[in-house]
Amino acid sequence: MRGVIDVPESMLPVATLVERALERVRVRFDRQLASDLPAVSDLVAHVERYRGKMLRPMLAVLSGVAVDPHASEALEAGGADAVELSDDLITVAGVCEMVHMATLVHDDVLDEADVRRRGATLNRLRGNEAAVILGDYLIAGSYHLCSQIGDQRVALEIGRVCMSLCAGELLQIDNRDEYSIDEPTYFEIIERKTGELIGAAAGLGAKVCGAPDEVAEAMRRFGVGVGLAFQIQDDLLDLLGREGTVGKSTGKDLQKGKLTLPVIHHLINAEPVARGQTLILLETAGEAIDADHALGDRLVESLNSTGSIEAARTHAVRLVDEAKSEIENLTGPCADMLRLMADAVVDRAF
Amino acid sequence: MRGVIDVPESMLPVATLVERALERVRVRFDRQLASDLPAVSDLVAHVERYRGKMLRPMLAVLSGVAVDPHASEALEAGGADAVELSDDLITVAGVCEMVHMATLVHDDVLDEADVRRRGATLNRLRGNEAAVILGDYLIAGSYHLCSQIGDQRVALEIGRVCMSLCAGELLQIDNRDEYSIDEPTYFEIIERKTGELIGAAAGLGAKVCGAPDEVAEAMRRFGVGVGLAFQIQDDLLDLLGREGTVGKSTGKDLQKGKLTLPVIHHLINAEPVARGQTLILLETAGEAIDADHALGDRLVESLNSTGSIEAARTHAVRLVDEAKSEIENLTGPCADMLRLMADAVVDRAF
Repeated sequence: MRGVIDVPESMLPVATLVERALERVRVRFDRQLASDLPAVSDLVAHVERYRGKMLRPMLAVLSGVAVDPHASEALEAGGADAVELSDDLITVAGVCEMVHMATLVHDDVLDEADVRRRGATLNRLRGNEAAVILGDYLIAGSYHLCSQIGDQRVALEIGRVCMSLCAGELLQIDNRDEYSIDEPTYFEIIERKTGELIGAAAGLGAKVCGAPDEVAEAMRRFGVGVGLAFQIQDDLLDLLGREGTVGKSTGKDLQKGKLTLPVIHHLINAEPVARGQTLILLETAGEAIDADHALGDRLVESLNSTGSIEAARTHAVRLVDEAKSEIENLTGPCADMLRLMADAVVDRAF
Repeated sequence: MRGVIDVPESMLPVATLVERALERVRVRFDRQLASDLPAVSDLVAHVERYRGKMLRPMLAVLSGVAVDPHASEALEAGGADAVELSDDLITVAGVCEMVHMATLVHDDVLDEADVRRRGATLNRLRGNEAAVILGDYLIAGSYHLCSQIGDQRVALEIGRVCMSLCAGELLQIDNRDEYSIDEPTYFEIIERKTGELIGAAAGLGAKVCGAPDEVAEAMRRFGVGVGLAFQIQDDLLDLLGREGTVGKSTGKDLQKGKLTLPVIHHLINAEPVARGQTLILLETAGEAIDADHALGDRLVESLNSTGSIEAARTHAVRLVDEAKSEIENLTGPCADMLRLMADAVVDRAF
């Protein structure tokens, strides 16, 4: 996890614990998707390159240790070597990452994206058909993995979250180019599309480590809040970032008619004439490829005229603060790391 | 199930039992996919029109009753009213149908098909994006439903089968336009793509009704064999059928470079010159839309010159016979109906 956030020296044992856990997650992940058919394993090998920050597995592992007083004490007293993470926790972490990867693969097909994690997307290299089916293979793999956990409520929750995730995606498609979309609809979309799975990672990580229901639920809400903030930051990066820094195609939201928080805020708050000019800009962006970001730059200028970029940033920070308040009673190095991660989500440029 | 096969009078109680069960499956299916978001429920309502023969739920229900001596006796003595089907059996039936529907929705996207069950496909009406995500919603729904069954081995088996199904699809994509594909590869593809899910319907139907492992496994093999025969018949219908009769787009296999059993048999058995002519025909069919079926008709003529259509039919019949031998010790009205259904699979024109 070093490289993703700045880890203060006092928390190095936590970072080591998480890194070792992530290595186990990678092994479980690869074993789950292994196939003796080259037609399958070649594609799986490609998609494993998509793996990036592993935010969901990190949250699952940290949540699991944070709610377990014995593990937290052992970590403080004896470092990473003194903590034994359960197989179920590693599995939960792997399941959440696999579901996430499936959505990336299908999103890239839908977005006609060419670049992901600085490499070519699967749909670009192998065509949409292989990409759709490989996404399905990842979903099936995640459920198969999930069914290996003793507590069946985990599979039930993952199934529910995945249904909600798809519903959010359909709601987003339904609201494409819908310039009168309101903030509640925007938040319903991103809670389903992003918040709930990140919430599940944190909540289920806690649950399989024996957290009482109300603690696991608070952890879930923490994850949902972090996820919402993460998505707002993602939308800002799509608007403001450049492919070289972000590592994936940018400007796609505009092109696909996806209205994000700063744009929605602007359309609600702009004077009629400015609003009209922005709508023309949005229409144009939806029809043309904005290769030199000229349209994007003009849009950003308009959004700044109503303070809408800043408003979105402020909203993300408020969500992080609310998320942290869900776990304010939780002490120990992993809870501290969760708070650090929550702050880092709105602080990143990639 | 009347309307799908000719039900002899002696078996009317079985038909009634199955029809009542299918009604319960439909209710469970709809309830599982219900959403208060119109963006979701509108699409679900459309896709529910895809529901056709319900082969998988029928097999699940019949297998479940066939392996349960008490239920079979009650059915014979008191008719359909005397048999109480368990919730788990209805759930297994619904899960298998939902997975199947998900594959139909994604297949239609991949095949760019316009017609399904005599209506427009979802991708045609709502675009590929909505169709891909709705397919994902159906997969997620099937797992969520599956996780409600007490015996977790059911979810594990469904997960395994779905992974295998995707692997079969990827193997098929990998062998597109591969004129030297052999019969073992063809059978590996259709066993994964079609056989295993139909096998799971029969095997898991038996398992949740308390069948000993070896009986459930024989039932599964019965289903796999019926599934393979079903797929060969499907391929023949795509080759020989016309849209008006079959109720979905035909000639798609050729257009998409999918080599099916009669074509593979022909390419192996034809004299070099005839083989060369067929290859030219296949290349042409892959590039043009065969609107008046002229290419298809010429191909069928070539295939008949090596007896390849007949050979494929014979193979399907042999698979049905082998499948029936798996359950030859099973007596009672439901086992008899399973045998009737197996025969009907290779006898259908739709």
